[in-house]
Amino acid sequence: MTKSANSMWGGRFAAGPDAIMEAINASIGYDRRLAPQDIAGSRAHAAMLAATGIISDNDAEVIREGLLTVLSEIETGDFPFSTALEDIHMNVEARLRDLIGEPAGRLHTARSRNDQVAVDFRLWVRDQCDQADEALGALQKALLGQAEAGADWVMPGFTHLQVAQPVTWGHHMLAYVEMFARDRSRFADARARMNTSPLGAAALAGTSFPIDRDMTAQALGFDRPMSNSLDGVADRDFALEFLASASICAMHLSRLAEELVIWSSAQFRFVKMSDKWSTGSSIMPQKRNPDAAELIRAKIGRIFGANVALMTVMKGLPLTYSKDMQEDKEQTFDAADNLMLALAAMTGMVADMTANRESLKAAAATGFSTATDLADWLVRELGLPFREAHHVTGSLVALAEEKTCDLPDLSLAQMQSVHADIRADVFDVLGVENSVASRTSFGGTAPSQVRAQIATWKEKLE
Amino acid sequence: MTKSANSMWGGRFAAGPDAIMEAINASIGYDRRLAPQDIAGSRAHAAMLAATGIISDNDAEVIREGLLTVLSEIETGDFPFSTALEDIHMNVEARLRDLIGEPAGRLHTARSRNDQVAVDFRLWVRDQCDQADEALGALQKALLGQAEAGADWVMPGFTHLQVAQPVTWGHHMLAYVEMFARDRSRFADARARMNTSPLGAAALAGTSFPIDRDMTAQALGFDRPMSNSLDGVADRDFALEFLASASICAMHLSRLAEELVIWSSAQFRFVKMSDKWSTGSSIMPQKRNPDAAELIRAKIGRIFGANVALMTVMKGLPLTYSKDMQEDKEQTFDAADNLMLALAAMTGMVADMTANRESLKAAAATGFSTATDLADWLVRELGLPFREAHHVTGSLVALAEEKTCDLPDLSLAQMQSVHADIRADVFDVLGVENSVASRTSFGGTAPSQVRAQIATWKEKLE
Amino acid sequence: MTKSANSMWGGRFAAGPDAIMEAINASIGYDRRLAPQDIAGSRAHAAMLAATGIISDNDAEVIREGLLTVLSEIETGDFPFSTALEDIHMNVEARLRDLIGEPAGRLHTARSRNDQVAVDFRLWVRDQCDQADEALGALQKALLGQAEAGADWVMPGFTHLQVAQPVTWGHHMLAYVEMFARDRSRFADARARMNTSPLGAAALAGTSFPIDRDMTAQALGFDRPMSNSLDGVADRDFALEFLASASICAMHLSRLAEELVIWSSAQFRFVKMSDKWSTGSSIMPQKRNPDAAELIRAKIGRIFGANVALMTVMKGLPLTYSKDMQEDKEQTFDAADNLMLALAAMTGMVADMTANRESLKAAAATGFSTATDLADWLVRELGLPFREAHHVTGSLVALAEEKTCDLPDLSLAQMQSVHADIRADVFDVLGVENSVASRTSFGGTAPSQVRAQIATWKEKLE
Amino acid sequence: MTKSANSMWGGRFAAGPDAIMEAINASIGYDRRLAPQDIAGSRAHAAMLAATGIISDNDAEVIREGLLTVLSEIETGDFPFSTALEDIHMNVEARLRDLIGEPAGRLHTARSRNDQVAVDFRLWVRDQCDQADEALGALQKALLGQAEAGADWVMPGFTHLQVAQPVTWGHHMLAYVEMFARDRSRFADARARMNTSPLGAAALAGTSFPIDRDMTAQALGFDRPMSNSLDGVADRDFALEFLASASICAMHLSRLAEELVIWSSAQFRFVKMSDKWSTGSSIMPQKRNPDAAELIRAKIGRIFGANVALMTVMKGLPLTYSKDMQEDKEQTFDAADNLMLALAAMTGMVADMTANRESLKAAAATGFSTATDLADWLVRELGLPFREAHHVTGSLVALAEEKTCDLPDLSLAQMQSVHADIRADVFDVLGVENSVASRTSFGGTAPSQVRAQIATWKEKLE
Repeated sequence: MTKSANSMWGGRFAAGPDAIMEAINASIGYDRRLAPQDIAGSRAHAAMLAATGIISDNDAEVIREGLLTVLSEIETGDFPFSTALEDIHMNVEARLRDLIGEPAGRLHTARSRNDQVAVDFRLWVRDQCDQADEALGALQKALLGQAEAGADWVMPGFTHLQVAQPVTWGHHMLAYVEMFARDRSRFADARARMNTSPLGAAALAGTSFPIDRDMTAQALGFDRPMSNSLDGVADRDFALEFLASASICAMHLSRLAEELVIWSSAQFRFVKMSDKWSTGSSIMPQKRNPDAAELIRAKIGRIFGANVALMTVMKGLPLTYSKDMQEDKEQTFDAADNLMLALAAMTGMVADMTANRESLKAAAATGFSTATDLADWLVRELGLPFREAHHVTGSLVALAEEKTCDLPDLSLAQMQSVHADIRADVFDVLGVENSVASRTSFGGTAPSQVRAQIATWKEKLE
Repeated sequence: MTKSANSMWGGRFAAGPDAIMEAINASIGYDRRLAPQDIAGSRAHAAMLAATGIISDNDAEVIREGLLTVLSEIETGDFPFSTALEDIHMNVEARLRDLIGEPAGRLHTARSRNDQVAVDFRLWVRDQCDQADEALGALQKALLGQAEAGADWVMPGFTHLQVAQPVTWGHHMLAYVEMFARDRSRFADARARMNTSPLGAAALAGTSFPIDRDMTAQALGFDRPMSNSLDGVADRDFALEFLASASICAMHLSRLAEELVIWSSAQFRFVKMSDKWSTGSSIMPQKRNPDAAELIRAKIGRIFGANVALMTVMKGLPLTYSKDMQEDKEQTFDAADNLMLALAAMTGMVADMTANRESLKAAAATGFSTATDLADWLVRELGLPFREAHHVTGSLVALAEEKTCDLPDLSLAQMQSVHADIRADVFDVLGVENSVASRTSFGGTAPSQVRAQIATWKEKLE
Repeated sequence: MTKSANSMWGGRFAAGPDAIMEAINASIGYDRRLAPQDIAGSRAHAAMLAATGIISDNDAEVIREGLLTVLSEIETGDFPFSTALEDIHMNVEARLRDLIGEPAGRLHTARSRNDQVAVDFRLWVRDQCDQADEALGALQKALLGQAEAGADWVMPGFTHLQVAQPVTWGHHMLAYVEMFARDRSRFADARARMNTSPLGAAALAGTSFPIDRDMTAQALGFDRPMSNSLDGVADRDFALEFLASASICAMHLSRLAEELVIWSSAQFRFVKMSDKWSTGSSIMPQKRNPDAAELIRAKIGRIFGANVALMTVMKGLPLTYSKDMQEDKEQTFDAADNLMLALAAMTGMVADMTANRESLKAAAATGFSTATDLADWLVRELGLPFREAHHVTGSLVALAEEKTCDLPDLSLAQMQSVHADIRADVFDVLGVENSVASRTSFGGTAPSQVRAQIATWKEKLE
Repeated sequence: MTKSANSMWGGRFAAGPDAIMEAINASIGYDRRLAPQDIAGSRAHAAMLAATGIISDNDAEVIREGLLTVLSEIETGDFPFSTALEDIHMNVEARLRDLIGEPAGRLHTARSRNDQVAVDFRLWVRDQCDQADEALGALQKALLGQAEAGADWVMPGFTHLQVAQPVTWGHHMLAYVEMFARDRSRFADARARMNTSPLGAAALAGTSFPIDRDMTAQALGFDRPMSNSLDGVADRDFALEFLASASICAMHLSRLAEELVIWSSAQFRFVKMSDKWSTGSSIMPQKRNPDAAELIRAKIGRIFGANVALMTVMKGLPLTYSKDMQEDKEQTFDAADNLMLALAAMTGMVADMTANRESLKAAAATGFSTATDLADWLVRELGLPFREAHHVTGSLVALAEEKTCDLPDLSLAQMQSVHADIRADVFDVLGVENSVASRTSFGGTAPSQVRAQIATWKEKLE
């Protein structure tokens, strides 16, 4: 590069056009992660080429053995990755040629980099669905452990972060078990939908070789080959659907993390995070910052950011393959890595945290949280229409507020001053323990219901 | 309002705090769309309250009849919507009380606005999944019609918007049939996952009334009640998953729309859009701007924008209901409306457009698009390794370029000057018709394969 | 429409292609908001056409008067908007022709809808920058009012939602004054950058008429005409930059709103929102849900969603005008409306809220919040290196924690048991009042600093 | 880790809680990029501590020298980074202690990691604004070079990707010069707004040490210290505004890249990309895939994705510092790196590409692209109202279309058959050269105007 060229590119790219093109074009820096998938795909392809007589059995055998050697070199860190060879596919093939010579040149028969990268990346994403499922199962178990420990511990149920009605700790934990179950179900659906093989789409039009796409599909664990070769090389739905599912999962994590941060505050003191998942301050040794919870809360940003990124990339791309699509991998890798990390950290945090049963119960009783129970009693026992019972309850709460006491602290006479028919058994519904015990509708917060749900979940999560 | 208050709020909100609070808080301006769902939900609830003895059969009957009257008033436009009543739920209940008096006050027993809005909105989104499915089916049929008409018309297959290999029009149309099939499958999965009933979750904790959640779930077409009442009122996954599915679908629409815009250019002339879906210019009567295609291409913006909006809203919300969640409806309404509009417009455009068979074929033959066929012939007939065949083909293309002719225009002698073993039957694979006919691998572009796929799709889309 | 066509389009679009095309294509349903800008632009254009001799003075006069009549009709609601005329430009021009006849046909000389809509929309967005500035100024004043009232009220300063050090209420309020000042500055920069006139770009290439672009620019308050006519019709940067600025502002609002929601909880009780900005519950009259704060917190979703939407629309659009760009308006209108609403509501909430001085102070003293002050004293008075002082403080906090007392409750002897050189004057820095008073660095939390900042801001906000 | 624990964490995190916490918490893997900024900040801080008498001159000198040694070790790659030390700040300080011993412990006096990271990251982002400005300047020069070479080359001006009017190549290139000028202006505004110093905010409340914030601000090139210490540690506006500006810039790049991809197609052949910026195919040596253009087009995805990510992270964070904010760096680093890469690649591509003057001109004459010129002639010369001239032109175009000729090919008699007053000098405006030459309005496409703009830009870009 001459001096003027240097200044043209600025300091970051002093090396000039070649370095810039290599920097923007080469993918080997990240797609090396696809090596196991690439080699599995090539091995399946070679076996099929031999079975259909396109190459000799001997060539196929040599290729397949050579590929195992390449894989082993990569796994042991001995593989000489080359940026000049641009991507993982060319790196593997070039090394194969070094190892086995001429037969390596037959491997790419009836194939193209377009269907090759499609199958590699699809296998990788499919594996992430499985990993997410496993990690979510572990998190559900951790939540279930908390739920079981405190199936009948009373805590405030919030709306608007205001105490609304008492609920149980177990019930609250189970709400997240449900959310993460839907996440698992979404990953399962995405996995099933993506589980078709693009291999054999070749460059884009299929091939005139008598390939057997069912055979490669089966060898790689796919349900069947994709039905349209143009679609096979142009489609990135599988990555987008993975990212969308990961984003919704990250949203659930952000809600739980937010609760853990709030609950860890000095004002709430609902839970104590273990030291492992907090950071302290050497100056304030009692301080326990919920760092892990905050970082998990933040992960929705980068995971959903990756979803936005890939959706934006795919917008308006004509068929079939465009180089724009090379941007799919780094986003998906980063989102998957961070999702798995966040799930693992959340599992650890939940497993290790300690709920403060006394704080929870004390908080549950604030804010006249059993007012609804009183109103329901008026409907059920006195036959008042709901809206009228609502009104009577409001007057009683106002009375209690005026007396600066809680509802159960009012005397029967005081109660009757508002509505004459109120009887002493009203007090049975006013304590928080009574309140939660009474909500026995299916899915309700009564410990009996919670325990039934826990039993169901334990069976499912075996 | 005093003068100083006026200036405090600025011109737009001269009316002061009450007007601002009403403007930001009231949802009746948009949630009135949920009236049919709200009334269906209330009718199911009333029937269940009677069946379980919580209210009398007579009250239930009067309530259910009165709700039909309300629905009828809304449908005929006679309903007096009130912003002071904030939302559709209060509007309907208030009108019911006008119509039937005291029994109206019993409807809300064992229910809360929290589970009420959850069930209403869920029913609405479920219906959109059905509508999307129907609209996508219509679009697939329009594409299939195009595919059938031109199953064997040759056109360029592009990568990087560069001609790569010849394909068929039918094959290209079918690629979109596949994409939209995945979209239908995604909506179906989302529908199945959301099809559980939150009704009976009450405010958040369930209820002490002996309700029958299975009964209301069944009456409203749900598969079963949701298993956790906190989750029932806090969950908006169903809307997010609908938006994510709609976004991927809109991405597919944007790709097809982009192709139609490019294909309509004077430089491509691959298709002619009908007048219905174009706008002209009174000054340039020959001009046919592909306005509908451009607008469809743009819809991914607002649909995915809605996905971003709701995901952002849900980030970090503690359980259970927060008012933030009221922002779910306008985004979902707008995205659904625009998706349905874009699907209908695309269906019309595709059904009415005319492919220019001659332009397509002429374009297919440019760019040595059968070079791959030549390379494959060398592998298949002469037994060359793929990479060597690739190299020989490159030399032949270079020779043709030098002679400024196409590959089939080279003489056999010229061909043999590059590789002596080439025989006259090589010319059988060099024409674009021969090329596409040869790609008979499953899902390939050969007319025989395309016709087989068309037959399969016709059966599925019956 | 025939029956089969009906079913083809599905229920929503039974009316067929014409209705669908009109639904997707016509903008008059929303761009009517641009009427004042459209008429101002046309009036400026007509005056210029006359001044340059392109049309007669008389025609210009008739046109300009006629346009005022049109504006008046629109303002009084008498204007007959027509969807068949598609957009505001055609509606206005058609009505002008009704009113003044043939001269109306001369108005569009040397102009096109492309530069017309560009100028209209730019004027509208420019006005929103001014409105945002005004609304932010009002919010800053409300915050300043709070700051002034509690310039020296002690409250906890949080990191990780854990009490870190005591700060003052005034200081905390001023932090938001700073953020909203940056927002104003961003809107001001955006306004300055967008304040150039596209009028005269015509369809895209400029015109052969001897127009005077400086004259129209000046008449419409622009700094100068844009320098490239292609850019003039293709650019939507002004809307994107407005949306980006609005999004960052909405992010600030979401942070403040989150604090208000948390501070309103029964566990914090730092502030009491006024009834105007809360909603109660008829059953729990003491309940005060911070609905307005939650709705404001949510607005970042739809405002940033609009930013995503328009950015996605603009991605990859070739020059110059594409119909995709018609999607710019609804997103920007909705974002601007919601920003102004959120700002007005936040201003009202902040002005009306009451800080609970006692709760704030009590909370400030928890968590050994003056440990840093102790460490700083050790550095300053005893000359310990910071890291060593840090360590000694940790031991003292551990001692206090063991004794279940706060730092100021330790005796001097106990202190000296940890570090022998500690003197009695250490107690001067341990109270929260002392702590905040001592932080007199520029921008620090000391009441003296806070009052100085308040004085500066009062002057700026006059 | 025991076996059961292993299975709990899944394969990816076999090492258990400590490894997971380190993985999610430690930032040294990426924030090591802030080393130069961190050391500059610490050196400025040390000098100020001495100047204000807080530490001794000797200590300051030793610290400042030691920091230079650390920097040198980092630059030469000899620095022993430690993940256990979590971040760059602790790594540098620990190494400093190794090197200089006890005085290292005095460096952190009157400072906190909160203001330290805020100043480091702000300095880094500020530098990126400068780099973006420089890179944009280089790109503008490359565009200007193209504009100068083809100031009067005629090409089609498109709307809707349909030929609308002829324009000049120079004019089209200059449109992008304008866009990138606005981008530079945005980065400049962002830089000015962020150029205030958070140093001295300490943990969040300021400090009781008599620090001189103006001195450190000046030493680091800031305009002034920030006025509120809470804001100083809580603010990430500077990163968000950088990302928003980068996103709009990336949008401009995506538009130009889209044009280059379309223009490189066999159907357009408007430009030929140089080999450096294309990739070929060994089998189709004539093929020149516009890979660099496609990759640049895609970059808006990840850059705007980063904007979404950080905006989502910041949503709803209470003051002041939360660990969530640690997610700011990777997103900003990645976006900045990719923006610089895309700018450099675009600069190279533009500088090296060759416009095909003949193809451009031939395309310009299609589609009756001078119909507007004809209409304008009718207005100007015959005094027809614009709308009537529009109508007459439409008839003439229809006539030409019927005769399958272009407008200039109609005879005068044929023209007069549509409007009797048309004269022979109408032909002066019908050729594309005449058309562009006539559009001399300011900013119009006439070569005279284009050359004037080029001259202006050359002066500005010196």
